[in-house]
Amino acid sequence: MERTVSSRLIHEGRRFDFLQDEVELPSGLRTRREIVRHPGAVAIVPVLPDGRIVLVRQYRYAAGKPLLEIPAGTLEEGEDPVECARRELIEETGYEASDLKEILSCYMAPGYSDEVIHFYEAHGLREVGASPEEDESIEVEVSELGQIVRMIEENVIEDAKTIIGIRCLKEK
Amino acid sequence: MERTVSSRLIHEGRRFDFLQDEVELPSGLRTRREIVRHPGAVAIVPVLPDGRIVLVRQYRYAAGKPLLEIPAGTLEEGEDPVECARRELIEETGYEASDLKEILSCYMAPGYSDEVIHFYEAHGLREVGASPEEDESIEVEVSELGQIVRMIEENVIEDAKTIIGIRCLKEK
Repeated sequence: MERTVSSRLIHEGRRFDFLQDEVELPSGLRTRREIVRHPGAVAIVPVLPDGRIVLVRQYRYAAGKPLLEIPAGTLEEGEDPVECARRELIEETGYEASDLKEILSCYMAPGYSDEVIHFYEAHGLREVGASPEEDESIEVEVSELGQIVRMIEENVIEDAKTIIGIRCLKEK
Repeated sequence: MERTVSSRLIHEGRRFDFLQDEVELPSGLRTRREIVRHPGAVAIVPVLPDGRIVLVRQYRYAAGKPLLEIPAGTLEEGEDPVECARRELIEETGYEASDLKEILSCYMAPGYSDEVIHFYEAHGLREVGASPEEDESIEVEVSELGQIVRMIEENVIEDAKTIIGIRCLKEK
């Protein structure tokens, strides 16, 4: 347990805030913790009726290159994660899901961020047309599950949430 | 591709920096990207000769609770990831590894952070005594692999890197 002594909002961001807190450790020692306060996110493994998986490729500014990923997005204020998953899946891939099954939730970088990603697998997919956000440029790529597993093993896929979603998929 | 128009250092942190960049998208549209610049990290799956795995439990201030994780740590400037893995494994668990095998590397949160974690599996373990950092309080827990897999399936383990390390382990 670490007690918050003081908390300073360093930056109020578009999608998350950045804080510097002073905390007291159980030993009585005081130290600083710099953390990202994130609203949370969802990631979806969209499984087509023939078993193939719908992935997205997009340029990631932080990484400085495009990454191949499962669809994902940030929770809006007060939004239910399953509704967010349904919305983001349509926005990014153009597929509507009749069945969203929770896989798991986890902290992506608990050393400095409270971001939790809620993972879903999506079945009963039907094409309705994508509607990406203005600053998103997303290409949809459909692949066999076996090929995606190979891309993980060969480290061609370099995105943590994609590795988790594919490796923890329940209905194969 | 997104071209950096300007970059502003909002905060120079203890372990990472926080920046706000203005970028130009291929469409010509300009937008802001808020990003964490992180030196990178390592995570280690330490496999004992009897096949059990060495985990660590520590309080995570960002998450507001203790999490059960594989050992991990941040790269020091210019440090080779495999040396960092060797060092962090000793510091956090007290085990020295004679054999460190690379599993994969991935971006933990490429939407806002350039942090890459390099994953290793560690074999040939020998106890030499732990030396945690002053502001770390770490308990070592040794578990059967099968039990850790169940804890992932039941979402008792909530840390992304631990899920990746265990799910992508090669030598079981």
